[in-house]
Amino acid sequence: MSQYLAPLNDMKFQLFDVWQVQQHWQEVPALAEQLEPETAEAILQEAAKICEQQIAPLSQQADMTGVQLHDGVVTTPEHYQANYRAWCEGGWAGFSGDPEYGGMGMPKVLSMMLDEMMCSADIAFSLYPGLTAGACVTLQQYATDEVKALYLPKLYSGEWSATMCLTESHAGSDLGLMRSKAEPQQDGSYRISGSKIFITAGEHDLTENIIHLVLAKLPDAPAGSRGISLFIVPKLIPDAAGNPGQRNALHCGSIEHKMGIHASATCVMNFDGATGYLLGEPHKGLAAMFTMMNYERLAMGSQGLGAAERAWQNALAYAHDRLQGRITERDANKAEPIIRHPDVQRMLHTIQSLNEAGRSFSTWVALQLDKAKYSGDEQGQQLANLLTPIAKAFMTDLGLECTVHAQQVFGGHGYIKEWGMEQLVRDVRIAQIYEGTNGIQAADFMLRKVAGDKGAVLLALFAEIEHWLDAANPQHQQLAAYLQRSSVLTQSLLQRAAENKALLADYAYEFMTLNGYLLYGYMWLKQVDALERAEIAIETKHQKQQMADFYFKRILPRAEALLLIMQE
Amino acid sequence: MSQYLAPLNDMKFQLFDVWQVQQHWQEVPALAEQLEPETAEAILQEAAKICEQQIAPLSQQADMTGVQLHDGVVTTPEHYQANYRAWCEGGWAGFSGDPEYGGMGMPKVLSMMLDEMMCSADIAFSLYPGLTAGACVTLQQYATDEVKALYLPKLYSGEWSATMCLTESHAGSDLGLMRSKAEPQQDGSYRISGSKIFITAGEHDLTENIIHLVLAKLPDAPAGSRGISLFIVPKLIPDAAGNPGQRNALHCGSIEHKMGIHASATCVMNFDGATGYLLGEPHKGLAAMFTMMNYERLAMGSQGLGAAERAWQNALAYAHDRLQGRITERDANKAEPIIRHPDVQRMLHTIQSLNEAGRSFSTWVALQLDKAKYSGDEQGQQLANLLTPIAKAFMTDLGLECTVHAQQVFGGHGYIKEWGMEQLVRDVRIAQIYEGTNGIQAADFMLRKVAGDKGAVLLALFAEIEHWLDAANPQHQQLAAYLQRSSVLTQSLLQRAAENKALLADYAYEFMTLNGYLLYGYMWLKQVDALERAEIAIETKHQKQQMADFYFKRILPRAEALLLIMQE
Repeated sequence: MSQYLAPLNDMKFQLFDVWQVQQHWQEVPALAEQLEPETAEAILQEAAKICEQQIAPLSQQADMTGVQLHDGVVTTPEHYQANYRAWCEGGWAGFSGDPEYGGMGMPKVLSMMLDEMMCSADIAFSLYPGLTAGACVTLQQYATDEVKALYLPKLYSGEWSATMCLTESHAGSDLGLMRSKAEPQQDGSYRISGSKIFITAGEHDLTENIIHLVLAKLPDAPAGSRGISLFIVPKLIPDAAGNPGQRNALHCGSIEHKMGIHASATCVMNFDGATGYLLGEPHKGLAAMFTMMNYERLAMGSQGLGAAERAWQNALAYAHDRLQGRITERDANKAEPIIRHPDVQRMLHTIQSLNEAGRSFSTWVALQLDKAKYSGDEQGQQLANLLTPIAKAFMTDLGLECTVHAQQVFGGHGYIKEWGMEQLVRDVRIAQIYEGTNGIQAADFMLRKVAGDKGAVLLALFAEIEHWLDAANPQHQQLAAYLQRSSVLTQSLLQRAAENKALLADYAYEFMTLNGYLLYGYMWLKQVDALERAEIAIETKHQKQQMADFYFKRILPRAEALLLIMQE
Repeated sequence: MSQYLAPLNDMKFQLFDVWQVQQHWQEVPALAEQLEPETAEAILQEAAKICEQQIAPLSQQADMTGVQLHDGVVTTPEHYQANYRAWCEGGWAGFSGDPEYGGMGMPKVLSMMLDEMMCSADIAFSLYPGLTAGACVTLQQYATDEVKALYLPKLYSGEWSATMCLTESHAGSDLGLMRSKAEPQQDGSYRISGSKIFITAGEHDLTENIIHLVLAKLPDAPAGSRGISLFIVPKLIPDAAGNPGQRNALHCGSIEHKMGIHASATCVMNFDGATGYLLGEPHKGLAAMFTMMNYERLAMGSQGLGAAERAWQNALAYAHDRLQGRITERDANKAEPIIRHPDVQRMLHTIQSLNEAGRSFSTWVALQLDKAKYSGDEQGQQLANLLTPIAKAFMTDLGLECTVHAQQVFGGHGYIKEWGMEQLVRDVRIAQIYEGTNGIQAADFMLRKVAGDKGAVLLALFAEIEHWLDAANPQHQQLAAYLQRSSVLTQSLLQRAAENKALLADYAYEFMTLNGYLLYGYMWLKQVDALERAEIAIETKHQKQQMADFYFKRILPRAEALLLIMQE
């Protein structure tokens, strides 16, 4: 059984020492009123308690039990009821919600940390509140006040949950091929018909109602993805008083049997002329859904990090406990803990150096979103747009790599279910696939986010980082050299693409990954830079420097291969 | 349900065009008599039939059913009986066995191909005959004629199977810590007591008897791994006529629940004063067991390749079938097969270029073993020793990478059990762990195989390859440059290790991996070189060249990062 303790000290270090988010909070009246580092610490401690003590200890049981479907009713593992109640009673369901409708209005930098803890504790469980939080973002932005008042309080309290219904079996991520239809009714509502697959939490027993956000085409829809509209389709249609009323014409047709996240209900949802309500403008559903998708994509990165953090903690503990082999000991009957084996250290350091850079990276991205949301900071929004696909794809790729390393530390025991390490590998694998595969993220990064503005935002970011770098520091210089070569490469790729249309799509994955490694290098330098002002244990400072050194020596050179691949 | 067709054309190309194994066969009377390329082709075709038609179609069912333990009896999936019968009736169980005792005496270059096909078809099933074949190698080498005559014919016919019992729960790969005991009896036999874990095929219902090769310590054993002896401990003790007689005092205590290879019985085996017979000399059991381990380690590489081959075939077929997105098509309602997406091609090409180099590599290593075995070629044995840890570790690491890429091509469907892709990932993962973790392989390569002779064999190999390379060919030059840098690096590491003892163990993994990529580069150049003389389809030649180009452009640069990491 794998253990978990939330890395609160590192979270505080990232928030208050590295990124000094308290400076941004002070600039925003809505945040300054309720948030100081001490309050935030107390919040994180409370969330950690639930994750460590209630959710994490039963994640393995959830994996073994999975979800069951009988006569359209989906049953989750028994303890999920208690998990969910505890989560809602703690007020966590509405943590980042609009205070006007009962949300807590908390910034993304904190909700990201919650996401990570939840994903360490149990990815499958995290998806039930996670999908709801994403749907709320879309409702906050696109719904009328009346609709918000009807749905948001119930979703923030966790009494109701929500889904996003995009995928159809023949179309996958190609939403333009969608066949689901919406027919306008005399009362202003719509009749929604179609079948959606891979609907996370499409049906379950944790809430009294489920609000589906469904993409479908109106009769007069233009062809392709420009003709898609978004609809609110509740499982139980709210009555005039806002209570769950009539059962809507929709049902769960089947659930998928998957490699992992067994306790997450992945449903085929059939809409048989179900009553739906248009959300946002006709034919503009995709943009609205992307609000939700972008929110989810950042949370995906936390899945990679969360699983890798728990994997690392357990591998580290195992490496200290397990006696095998002799490194310094000469007595043939005495074994030493395997942590003294250099190769075990290599694996543990690889995970730790990637995890702590990842936590820094997600804090940085979240801070940009907060600046955009609370301060209307255009640059923050641009940066968040640029970095979101990296947060999704790069962090989940590393999530797989790191959980596999951690499993490897356990030797044969890593392959046995009992120890819980193989579950982390199986569970985290989905994060590279859903919410847009990592290949789609890479294309989004290269084609839209970089080529879309001729590299302006990326190159400006590089220039800003280079400006910050210290010419007298060898690691700073090492990163500066990489950034300069990457700038040249970026410009060269954009030029060469004029003559070779497929070039950018062809190199998209390597390009996304290259930028991931460079920015993680920046994260390590930012962390080292923060060590002076941080009031943290001297051993922690020592370890941070050691991990920075490890990253620059053993991980960052991967950028060299990627540069070489893409050079002309 | 995933499909499988044995890659017979590529196997023939590797055997007869690239490595021209027929030249070696002609030099060896025992082989020249019975083997010509045509016979070998017919043999491979027959093996392919069983793998394609009988074993592969039910591998998913085997995964779902798994093995069951009740009252010490292990039940395998029902169809495994038929699989096993077909395998034995085809004579495959004794394929590489000693003809004097009923084996077919076939060379390793062919049995490696069988291993690959079996692993594509069903890794879990492949382990039952696989362990037996490994045990036979040890018996052939260390048993007396009398013992050989008693056991080998039954093992070659498949009537009996065999195991290797090394691991104890507190010791893992640290065999020196072993506690199992062997007490000498008056009749020359021994009473074996102890508990072994992770015993593949330790108990099952496919054969009438199971012969355990058990490591244990004699009462006068020196401490550590120099005090270990090897014993034959049959489940049913053969009577005077060689038929299974009295039940021995050993039993399966439990079976493991694992991430994958569910239908392989991974047993805890308890020996309660069981009757055993010394195999080889007292205290020299480890060397004898290593004969078996080395055989198995090569077969592990085939597990990585076999799983990746099947994964690639299915991903390729899916990419042709699946319509999604538009690359050249402008009509928003018309989707194109995803194989036209450059990123899907990148994944497929990555797998193909690694698989075909891997098949070339394992043929090369197997040929060295054949030269050593049939022609007493000392250089062949040295080369096989050097390359075995790379075959085990590098090929299984790539097995995971490639099955993950193939699963990714399927998008969400890759995560669903129904499609069979996630099973390949789960099944292949064990190959990085068992038979000595890949970290242990890397240490073996760096510390024993390279540092052990001050780099002599490795550097001589590099020199030989460089000598063969064509100075006028840019890809040849590219590889030559890498080999020169790697030679310098190897010498530098060995020198630096004099002052820093942990250095070699620290860099062992990167060093092993670096050599893997360079040798795969050599494999591609050897394949391209063979294209002129090969009588193969022009499209195949074109594809081979394309894959070589892809490897040199997109994969080999990974060596750059590894060189950089290890440089001073």
